[in-house]
Amino acid sequence: MKLSDGVEAAIHCASALASLPENAVMSASDLAEAFGVSPSYLLKHLKTMVAKGLLTSVSGPLGGYRLAKSPSEITFLDIVLAVDGSEPAFRCKEIRRNGPCPLDSSAYPKPCGIKIAMLKAEQKYRGALAEITIAAVTEDHLATSDPRVLKRGETYLAERARYQPQ
Amino acid sequence: MKLSDGVEAAIHCASALASLPENAVMSASDLAEAFGVSPSYLLKHLKTMVAKGLLTSVSGPLGGYRLAKSPSEITFLDIVLAVDGSEPAFRCKEIRRNGPCPLDSSAYPKPCGIKIAMLKAEQKYRGALAEITIAAVTEDHLATSDPRVLKRGETYLAERARYQPQ
Repeated sequence: MKLSDGVEAAIHCASALASLPENAVMSASDLAEAFGVSPSYLLKHLKTMVAKGLLTSVSGPLGGYRLAKSPSEITFLDIVLAVDGSEPAFRCKEIRRNGPCPLDSSAYPKPCGIKIAMLKAEQKYRGALAEITIAAVTEDHLATSDPRVLKRGETYLAERARYQPQ
Repeated sequence: MKLSDGVEAAIHCASALASLPENAVMSASDLAEAFGVSPSYLLKHLKTMVAKGLLTSVSGPLGGYRLAKSPSEITFLDIVLAVDGSEPAFRCKEIRRNGPCPLDSSAYPKPCGIKIAMLKAEQKYRGALAEITIAAVTEDHLATSDPRVLKRGETYLAERARYQPQ
């Protein structure tokens, strides 16, 4: 089982955008440069996050991306489902119905217990991801990171943030 | 994110083996037939489960597979980790260290907060999978399935179980 590499980049980008001043945006290429990932690869995920209502895209020469809502309203689960898809990791193929002497579907009025148990466990994962917000992880980063890391981030944001005309 | 299709087959096989009499085994080809999956595909997973101490393989003309321990001691997590691998679904590539003006590793004395949060959520998933045993899912199957399904399973096991010489 593996989450898309895009999840790490998408969460880092959302956290970086959470640090921007309210009327500022950052371009996809600057975000890609900040985390050393391919711009075309990142763009795909940024566009998906826009489509899912997590980011807003502003077009034009001063365009870029910003969070579409408060960082306290964007959870890790929102980003994982946007980037990695919402289908469960466990996909039941109903193999219990295969084999010799097949029975018709009336013999299976209840869902497979294995499927139910697997999906319940996955709900715990999703529940835990839903409890972590971009606000919390960004605050934690600001409170616990080495001053050199914070300075580097501040400098980068100050250089690359694009301010929208008021 | 997707679990290997082998997880469904492996759990169903473990549950079927949990229903065998104590000195009986079932062959890989019979298990594959019972669930309509490819024998070579299933064999790979059965061998992995043997290597992980979940199943025992008995060789010879009356050979086959049986559980290596009590079904109450085999959890869904054991099977997921055996079949799908134990690496976390979230694989941190430390992209926080990328980008312009890189800092040396002394600037990152603490693990990335995003990685920590993602892995904590994954631990909830693993914890939930560790709470489900093959015994519980097999008992639930026996207690709640349609009589036609139970009869079909019993007939299949009675026909295909191989008894080891005492």
